[in-house]
Amino acid sequence: MSRSATTLAAVPQSLLLSQFVERERESVLDRLDAWLRIPSISGDPGHASDVRDSAQWCADRMVSLGLEHVRLLETDGHPSVYGDWLHAADAPTVVVYGHHDVQPVEPLDEWVSPPFEPTVRDGQLFARGAVDDKGQVLYHLEALRGLFALGDGRLPVNVKLLVEGEEEVGSPHFESLLQRERDLLVCDAVVVSDTGMLSSDTPSMCTGMRGLVVVDVELRTAPSDLHSGSYGGAVPNAAHAAAAVIAALHDEAHRVTIPGFYDRVRELTPAEREALARVPWDDAAFKLEAGVSALEGESGRSTLERIWARPTAEIIGLESGWSAGVRTIVPAVARFRMGCRLVADQQPDEIRELCERWVRDRLPPGVDAHFIRHGAVAPARTPLDHPAVAAAAAAIERVWGRPPLYTREGGSGPEEALGRVLDAPVVFLGVGLPDDGIHGPNERIVLDQLWRGVLAAGELWREMSRTSFEGKR
Amino acid sequence: MSRSATTLAAVPQSLLLSQFVERERESVLDRLDAWLRIPSISGDPGHASDVRDSAQWCADRMVSLGLEHVRLLETDGHPSVYGDWLHAADAPTVVVYGHHDVQPVEPLDEWVSPPFEPTVRDGQLFARGAVDDKGQVLYHLEALRGLFALGDGRLPVNVKLLVEGEEEVGSPHFESLLQRERDLLVCDAVVVSDTGMLSSDTPSMCTGMRGLVVVDVELRTAPSDLHSGSYGGAVPNAAHAAAAVIAALHDEAHRVTIPGFYDRVRELTPAEREALARVPWDDAAFKLEAGVSALEGESGRSTLERIWARPTAEIIGLESGWSAGVRTIVPAVARFRMGCRLVADQQPDEIRELCERWVRDRLPPGVDAHFIRHGAVAPARTPLDHPAVAAAAAAIERVWGRPPLYTREGGSGPEEALGRVLDAPVVFLGVGLPDDGIHGPNERIVLDQLWRGVLAAGELWREMSRTSFEGKR
Repeated sequence: MSRSATTLAAVPQSLLLSQFVERERESVLDRLDAWLRIPSISGDPGHASDVRDSAQWCADRMVSLGLEHVRLLETDGHPSVYGDWLHAADAPTVVVYGHHDVQPVEPLDEWVSPPFEPTVRDGQLFARGAVDDKGQVLYHLEALRGLFALGDGRLPVNVKLLVEGEEEVGSPHFESLLQRERDLLVCDAVVVSDTGMLSSDTPSMCTGMRGLVVVDVELRTAPSDLHSGSYGGAVPNAAHAAAAVIAALHDEAHRVTIPGFYDRVRELTPAEREALARVPWDDAAFKLEAGVSALEGESGRSTLERIWARPTAEIIGLESGWSAGVRTIVPAVARFRMGCRLVADQQPDEIRELCERWVRDRLPPGVDAHFIRHGAVAPARTPLDHPAVAAAAAAIERVWGRPPLYTREGGSGPEEALGRVLDAPVVFLGVGLPDDGIHGPNERIVLDQLWRGVLAAGELWREMSRTSFEGKR
Repeated sequence: MSRSATTLAAVPQSLLLSQFVERERESVLDRLDAWLRIPSISGDPGHASDVRDSAQWCADRMVSLGLEHVRLLETDGHPSVYGDWLHAADAPTVVVYGHHDVQPVEPLDEWVSPPFEPTVRDGQLFARGAVDDKGQVLYHLEALRGLFALGDGRLPVNVKLLVEGEEEVGSPHFESLLQRERDLLVCDAVVVSDTGMLSSDTPSMCTGMRGLVVVDVELRTAPSDLHSGSYGGAVPNAAHAAAAVIAALHDEAHRVTIPGFYDRVRELTPAEREALARVPWDDAAFKLEAGVSALEGESGRSTLERIWARPTAEIIGLESGWSAGVRTIVPAVARFRMGCRLVADQQPDEIRELCERWVRDRLPPGVDAHFIRHGAVAPARTPLDHPAVAAAAAAIERVWGRPPLYTREGGSGPEEALGRVLDAPVVFLGVGLPDDGIHGPNERIVLDQLWRGVLAAGELWREMSRTSFEGKR
C-alpha cells in the first residue's frame, strides 16, 4: 500500500507512525539523550537551575514540533511547562500530564553507568529519568510530531501538554497551579503517562493510584547531645524515644495502629476484585525483583492488594545521634520521616492529623515533638466503566496486540488533583516495566516500550477523537 | 618568711608554686592557647596530621621543660607521647596519664567562639580540648616546670609522662602499646588527670570509671532501597526492624533486657555506698545542667548510682533511609551504634557477644545483621583504702582547703588497662567541673581550676615521695 493511494483516516495511524518511528529512531534517542543529561533533581536545592533548564528544554522542544502558547508556568517552586494545539474543531480536548523533574541518584556507586550520561545496553537506555518520566513525556512529543507530519500539520484532537517540575517532591505547588490555570486547562479528559504495565507482553492499564502523606517528626530531649559517660543511664535518649514510637506503629498483624487510620478505606468492589484476580502474579518473582528474602505486610491480604489497594504508614528516613567516628553521646535529637501511602477514600489532611496526634500521644516525659509537613497527594481511582478507559484500552490493544489488564499503582502522583480540579476523567497510558529501577540506581527504559509508547500515544488520539464524553464527567 | 631563709623541703611547695603560677599565668595561657589551636580530632581521618602535630607539640614542650627520653610512641593509629625524669633515687616512680586528642566539634554553629580559637571569657577558657584533656596535661607539665625551677632542676619523685592520642576514639591501640612498652612504663602508681570534681568548692576524687563497649549494627533487607509506591506494604522495612530491636532493649523498669547483661555487676560495698551518700546531689540541678525536663533510668536506683555504678546499653547513633528531600522509599538498610557503659566486673568482650547475639536472635525473617566492632574499655575501680588514694586526697585537701569526697565517673578511659597492664594503683587528679561541656559545644576550663591543678600536681609529687607502695599493688 502506497501512502499516496490512501487517505490518512483510512490507514491505521500506528502503521504510518511505525514507519515514522522506524525512520526517526536515532533522532528520537538523540533528543532523549540531551534531555536526560540535564540533572533536574527537584529534591535538591543545588539542582534548581537544572530543573529550570530541563523545563526550558521541554518548552523549546514543544515549540520546535509545532505546539502553541508554549510557556513555563511558574510556581513558588520549580516551573511546569505548557503547550497546546487547539485547532481540531468538534474533537475532544485532552490534557497530557507528565513531569520533567527526577529523583536523586544516591547511592552513586551502585550505577553501572553515570545517571546523567544516558547509555544504551541490550536494548535498554539507562539514565535517571529514562522512564520516570522524561522518556514517557518524550513519546507523547514524538507521537505529536509524527501526527503533525502525517496530518499535514493537523492533529485529530485538541491537546494541552502539562509537564510538571515537582512531581518527585510530592507536587507541593501543583494543585494551586491547577487552580490558577483552570481556564487554560479546561479539557474532556486527562492522560497521565507516568506509570507502567505488567510486562512487555502483558499490557496493562492503571486505574488507580495510592496517595501519599509525608510527615517529618523531630523528637528532642535536650538542647544538645549529652556525654554518655556523664549522663548515660539517667536522661532520656532521643533515639530510644523514636524507636519506641516507630516500633508501636504496627501491630503483630502488620496493621497500622493509629486509631482511625483505616476508617475511610474502601474495600474493593466485586469488579475490581475480579480485575485484580486476572492479573498474573508471582510472589517469588516479586521477591526476587525486590531483592528481599521475605515478604511482610498486612495479614489476610495478598501482595497485590497490599501494594495497590491497602494503605501503609512507614518510616522512610531516620536519623539520630552521631554516625561518623566514635562519639559517646546520648542523642538529644531524633528525626524520622513517616510516609503514608493512601487509598480511596482516605484524606491526606485527616491522616496527617491522625499521625501527628498519635506521635504526640505516645511521647514519654521529657521528649518534645516538632512536625514538618510536606506536600500530600490524595489517592486516585478511575471507575472501570468510564469511556475514557475504553479508549485507552483500545489504543493499547492495537499496539500490544491484546487488551490490557486493569491494574493499580502503589505510587503517588498528582493525578487525583488533575481529575478533581479539572473535573475530567483521568486515564493512564504508561509503558514502564516493573524492573525499570525507578527511584533507585540504574533506572532504564526498554527501547521497544519507548517505540510502542509513540505508537500508542498516536492511537490514543484517534480513539479519543471518536469518544463521547457527554454526561461522563 | 623569706625564701632564702628556708629549705625547700620545709616550705609547702604549693606556696612557692603559687608564686610561680602567679608570675607565669600569661605564659601558661600562651602555651595552652598554642596547643588548643591544633585540631587534633582523632575520630576524623582528615585530622590525622593534626593529631600528629599535637603529639609533636607536646613532645617539644616536654623537651623544653627538662624531661628526658622524650619521643612519640607510634601505634597503628595516632601516636602517644612519652617523656620521663628518673633521677630521684629511692623515691617512687609515677606514671602520669593524659591524652592530647580531642572530640569532634559538631554542631559548629552552637559554639559561641570557634572551637580551635581559644577565647577567655569570665575567667574561663573556651576551646575544644580545654579541659578534656590538653588543659589537664598542661597543668602537670607546668607543675613539673615549677618544681624543676624551685628544686634546682630536680623533682621529688620519678615521673613518666604518657600522653595518648586516641582516647576519644576508645583507645583502640593503647593496650597493645602498654604491653609493648611495659618495661619502659614500670611504676609504683599511675596518676590519671582526665576527670573532674563536683564543684570548685567541693573537691572530689574519682575512684572508679565505667567502661565502654561500642557495637555497630547494620540491618539489611534488600540490596538497595525500594520505591515505597511499588513495594511499600509488602516488603520488610529496615528502619522498622531497627526500631523494633532498639525498642526492645529496655523493659518498663528501664533495665537492659539482654540476658546475662547484669550477671557480673558488683553491687556497691557498704563503704562505697556511704561515700556515695556523702556526695551532695541535686536532681533538679542535674536536669537543668543537662537541659532535660525529665530524668529517666533504671528503677530503684538514684541518679548517682545510675551514672556511676550501673551499666547502660544505649543507642548513640542511628540512621536509615533518606533524609534530604522527599524520597519515597522503603529503606533497605538501617545502621545503629550501641554503646554500653560497663561497671566492675563486667567484661567488654562478653558484653559485646551478648549484644550481638541478642540482636541476631531478635531479627524477623528477611533481615540480615552485620556487626562492626570498635575499641572497648573495661570498667575501673580503685579501692578506697589504698595509700595512693590517701596521697592524692592529701594533695587535694592542701590546695582546695578540704578533703575530697570520693566519687566515680560515668565515662570511660583507658585507666583500667593502665592499672592492669602496669600492675599499679590508679589514682585520679582531675579539675574538670560538671558544666565544662566536654564532648559538646563550648567546652571550657575554669582558669582558677587550672591554676589549682598546677598546685595540686606539685603537692601530689611531694605526697607521693612519702608514700610507701610496698605490698600495696
